[in-house]
Amino acid sequence: MDFEPGTLLKNINSPADLKKLSESDLENVCKELRQYIIDVVSVYGGHFAASLGVVELTVALHYVLNTPYDQLVWDVGHQAYGHKILTGRRDVFHTNRVYNGISGFPKRSESEYDTFGVGHSSTSISAALGMAVASHYKGENDRQHVAVIGDGSMTAGMAFEALNHAGIEKSNLLVILNDNCMAIDPNVGALKEYLTDITVSKPYNRFRDDIAAVLSKISQIGPDALGLAKKIEKSVKGTLLKNSNLFESLKFRYFGPVDGHDVKRLVKIIDELRDIPGPKLLHCITVKGKGFALAEKDQTKWHAPGLFDKITGEIKKTVSDKPVAPKYQDVFGHTLVELAEKNEKIMGITPAMPSGSSMNIMMKAMPDRAFDVGIAEQHAVTFSAGLATQGMVPFCNIYSTFMQRAYDQVIHDVALQNLNVVFCLDRAGIAGADGPTHHGAYDLAYMRCIPNMKVAAPMNEEELRNLMYTAQIEDMGPFVIRYPRGQGVVPDWRRPFKEITIGKGRKICDGEDLAILSIGHIGNEVVKATVSLNSDGIFPAHYDLRFVKPLDEELLHEVFRKFSKVITVEDGCIQGGMGSAVLEFMADHGYQSKVVRLGIPDEFIEHGEQNQLWAECGYDAQHIILNAKQLSEGRKTNTMAG
Amino acid sequence: MDFEPGTLLKNINSPADLKKLSESDLENVCKELRQYIIDVVSVYGGHFAASLGVVELTVALHYVLNTPYDQLVWDVGHQAYGHKILTGRRDVFHTNRVYNGISGFPKRSESEYDTFGVGHSSTSISAALGMAVASHYKGENDRQHVAVIGDGSMTAGMAFEALNHAGIEKSNLLVILNDNCMAIDPNVGALKEYLTDITVSKPYNRFRDDIAAVLSKISQIGPDALGLAKKIEKSVKGTLLKNSNLFESLKFRYFGPVDGHDVKRLVKIIDELRDIPGPKLLHCITVKGKGFALAEKDQTKWHAPGLFDKITGEIKKTVSDKPVAPKYQDVFGHTLVELAEKNEKIMGITPAMPSGSSMNIMMKAMPDRAFDVGIAEQHAVTFSAGLATQGMVPFCNIYSTFMQRAYDQVIHDVALQNLNVVFCLDRAGIAGADGPTHHGAYDLAYMRCIPNMKVAAPMNEEELRNLMYTAQIEDMGPFVIRYPRGQGVVPDWRRPFKEITIGKGRKICDGEDLAILSIGHIGNEVVKATVSLNSDGIFPAHYDLRFVKPLDEELLHEVFRKFSKVITVEDGCIQGGMGSAVLEFMADHGYQSKVVRLGIPDEFIEHGEQNQLWAECGYDAQHIILNAKQLSEGRKTNTMAG
Repeated sequence: MDFEPGTLLKNINSPADLKKLSESDLENVCKELRQYIIDVVSVYGGHFAASLGVVELTVALHYVLNTPYDQLVWDVGHQAYGHKILTGRRDVFHTNRVYNGISGFPKRSESEYDTFGVGHSSTSISAALGMAVASHYKGENDRQHVAVIGDGSMTAGMAFEALNHAGIEKSNLLVILNDNCMAIDPNVGALKEYLTDITVSKPYNRFRDDIAAVLSKISQIGPDALGLAKKIEKSVKGTLLKNSNLFESLKFRYFGPVDGHDVKRLVKIIDELRDIPGPKLLHCITVKGKGFALAEKDQTKWHAPGLFDKITGEIKKTVSDKPVAPKYQDVFGHTLVELAEKNEKIMGITPAMPSGSSMNIMMKAMPDRAFDVGIAEQHAVTFSAGLATQGMVPFCNIYSTFMQRAYDQVIHDVALQNLNVVFCLDRAGIAGADGPTHHGAYDLAYMRCIPNMKVAAPMNEEELRNLMYTAQIEDMGPFVIRYPRGQGVVPDWRRPFKEITIGKGRKICDGEDLAILSIGHIGNEVVKATVSLNSDGIFPAHYDLRFVKPLDEELLHEVFRKFSKVITVEDGCIQGGMGSAVLEFMADHGYQSKVVRLGIPDEFIEHGEQNQLWAECGYDAQHIILNAKQLSEGRKTNTMAG
Repeated sequence: MDFEPGTLLKNINSPADLKKLSESDLENVCKELRQYIIDVVSVYGGHFAASLGVVELTVALHYVLNTPYDQLVWDVGHQAYGHKILTGRRDVFHTNRVYNGISGFPKRSESEYDTFGVGHSSTSISAALGMAVASHYKGENDRQHVAVIGDGSMTAGMAFEALNHAGIEKSNLLVILNDNCMAIDPNVGALKEYLTDITVSKPYNRFRDDIAAVLSKISQIGPDALGLAKKIEKSVKGTLLKNSNLFESLKFRYFGPVDGHDVKRLVKIIDELRDIPGPKLLHCITVKGKGFALAEKDQTKWHAPGLFDKITGEIKKTVSDKPVAPKYQDVFGHTLVELAEKNEKIMGITPAMPSGSSMNIMMKAMPDRAFDVGIAEQHAVTFSAGLATQGMVPFCNIYSTFMQRAYDQVIHDVALQNLNVVFCLDRAGIAGADGPTHHGAYDLAYMRCIPNMKVAAPMNEEELRNLMYTAQIEDMGPFVIRYPRGQGVVPDWRRPFKEITIGKGRKICDGEDLAILSIGHIGNEVVKATVSLNSDGIFPAHYDLRFVKPLDEELLHEVFRKFSKVITVEDGCIQGGMGSAVLEFMADHGYQSKVVRLGIPDEFIEHGEQNQLWAECGYDAQHIILNAKQLSEGRKTNTMAG
């Protein structure tokens, strides 16, 4: 074992061990748990601040509840490190998010304590309600069902849909609102302001008591006052009190706000809430990053800081002696501002990912033209559509995997009306350590079947800039630009803009034995493969398709006229993706080349480094080489046979 | 012209004409408008009750506002018939929903008064906010932006996302909540109960005034009382009043409730609200079906009743002398109950479509096992996932086009965890008169790229039953069954259940010239085509693939070994659909047959009868015949050439 847990924590191998401790030990358990998270994450990396914020809540929940019989659903799940450590995964916790290690999120296949796999936000209430309704149906009425959800996640529509349904079910559901005023970036929206209001104002329950006390005093003044006091009381009770809280409006019983770092108080409250039937909400105020001063101070930076020195707080940077290519994210952020400076129609929209997408650059430079709309992908897309009807050119930046949340809005509100919304799909393809919930595997397949859509992917930073430039030149309808997480390949990326003809690919190099067609950044693996193949006497031609829709038919005619052997390479699912589009072209034009499609196979891919997973999926440079050799050997065999 | 509008209405060719009238004429305009809707819809069909409910609102909005400069977004849009009639489409209104006629929904390409195309619910606030933000940015601060949204639509998450964002924007946005307690079926959920509460209790603004009055009286009693009254006042104002209404919690100014059938009052209020900046909500109480007694009484039946006698209210039925095949919907509804009677794990879930999907049959028979969760597709799917974690077998019935709303939940919450949720996708393929917003064109493409998924489509009612039976036998992970709107082909459908082997297709008939592969109900067009082709001496083999995922590889090997010419037929998009899956199989196994793919082309298809649109898209029996002849002539040409 790499890390020494504290004296209490080292004996906790499951919640049963936690329960053996006396309540007076719990504060120390929290201290040790927090320290253990700091120790491990500082050396191995991972999400950080969120888990520190729920240490007391985690300990209290497992101390009071009978998990896993009682069911605990962590929304998003990057705050569940403490939960993992307390439920038998302390000694493997350092493998968190590492290839073949444990997942950074709760995962059903990993532990019976992980009741529901999470990763995307705002699913917990729906899932826990499903569990609660099933328990109710089975007559397991002693069973508890708890969803722990952040105030950021609460802004997503599906959380509201779940509250709306839960409010009329009689099932045993406790929603714990972990209110730290943060998503990854500061939370935004009316709900956040409301939560702040009710937090700084007098607690609701106390207010109700106060009013009663004052009314009672008034009524003692005399018969006139008594009558009036009764009138107020009736009015207040009848009209206001029962709907005076947003959650009570939705038929939840509301409790709080309470200090989410007072573990003893939490134990007492959670214990009491067990006996209250029906839907209820406990509002906990927590501090993201609690217990690590720097993280409390800059919560966005410390959401997932990478490796750091736990004493000095210095975040470790990888040092390179070569000039370093920028992240695609940063190229997006700077380029958007550059374009918006010249085109006053451009606006920027992000659903709660200002720093992750680098939309924060425009939000800072042009605050009236860039919007963080909260965790609300559906609204982000249709809000963009509304802007586009007025002649604006919205750049709506959404991670590929989260765009799945707004699929209908893309079809129904944007594409059907042929509105000029530019969708920048960040984290497309294999996303890395976040794993299967976060890979942007399906976008090429689910976007290219939509009429009016243009779907492009840049092979490098310069291409990204030029695609963004092209997408805003004139009213050209919906336009998808998808690009991966992380670094590109061109250190000197800030070059003059060039318009790209829609649906036009590029020939990267000529060849003779076979053709390799790629789309997007993964084309750089093809470049590596080609160099290696050339040294083995195999000379593939390499084409960067750039667009999956519309396809470059001229380029494809050239390819299929010239080559009887073709490999397609994409950082996306093979079913229905770019390779599939190429097959459709072939069928429509009667070509009969042998085509090998490389891409994400028909399974969910676990977490790891991007290049580890490209290799696992069989489309890194090595596997491209292997396939090219096999295919060209096939040729030789055929030739010899012929 | 087929219908005689009333004396006022016949002179209203645009809102400008309406504005020329005096306020005292408006009630008569409403009367005439209502009558005109009844006259036309009774003869030509269409949505009915929703438009009757907003006649006064429609007249008031166009009377007061400066449309189309002021922008009006109708949520869903089936209530916009009055709007269409008043904005220049009176004389073509009878072509509503007819092939080549006007759309049943607002549509940007149809009129400048239709500011935003709608059809799916709950998009209006996002769209109107986008417009309002654009106007604000352009300095058009006199411009009004109004979203009219029903209480049913308000239950969908994206409406909440939009409120959450709008509440912190300072743009000029008016949301009119058209509260009639109905979606297509009665609205459900906590929000609906809340709206009922605030409607029956004292209006909020009046309550605020009352409290102030009473407090003032108390304070006159004496100095003691004065101090106490002040204490209450402070407390009430500080803690309760500013958040005492759900919409005020979300930073909207709330007005109402008002009688939505009092046109004069509405004119006054809408006029006043123009001068109030920022986000505001007007709560209107209306009666769906208002003015047509039967429709007021049974609002679900009269949502879209078909043709009827406007005097007697008798709904006209098509009479047939042959035994009539049932609707797929009804087969689903009855079969689900039949299965659930034997398998106690089965539960039913519908997002607000009990009658449309026939889930109401199970809701009536087994009220504790069938759930209408409101217009909330995202929640419906993840709630189903939660049920499935507890060993339940949820049948989650969602129209194909609405399933786009829950795409992420299907991937992230169900497929990734390989949970046994059965998705029954109703209205798959061309949906008919509802048009492009409602065609279920993309499901085969967007579902088949998801790992763990099984995707099937029945060719007739018996197949639907057997697929449903198969999907619930054992824990087999996520399972999609998609079927079209309307009638099947087997009058005698209630046959004993047979298990279907997963991924197994059927040979419908043997042949020699070419093979036709079909999926789903459209296979019946292939059957018709085959009969006709046979009489012309062409003998296609016909295979019903049944599953797009997994593919029946044995069947496909047989097809491609035997046939060099293949036609694929699907009632879904060609890009990435079933035909594309077949091409992938061919490429992976080195087959080189000529394949012609028939299906929905890469464009949005307008409204019309299903068979009109199948013909337009080129995959009805006639076009299948045409393609088969061309393809087999190709053979003959080749043979002769050889």
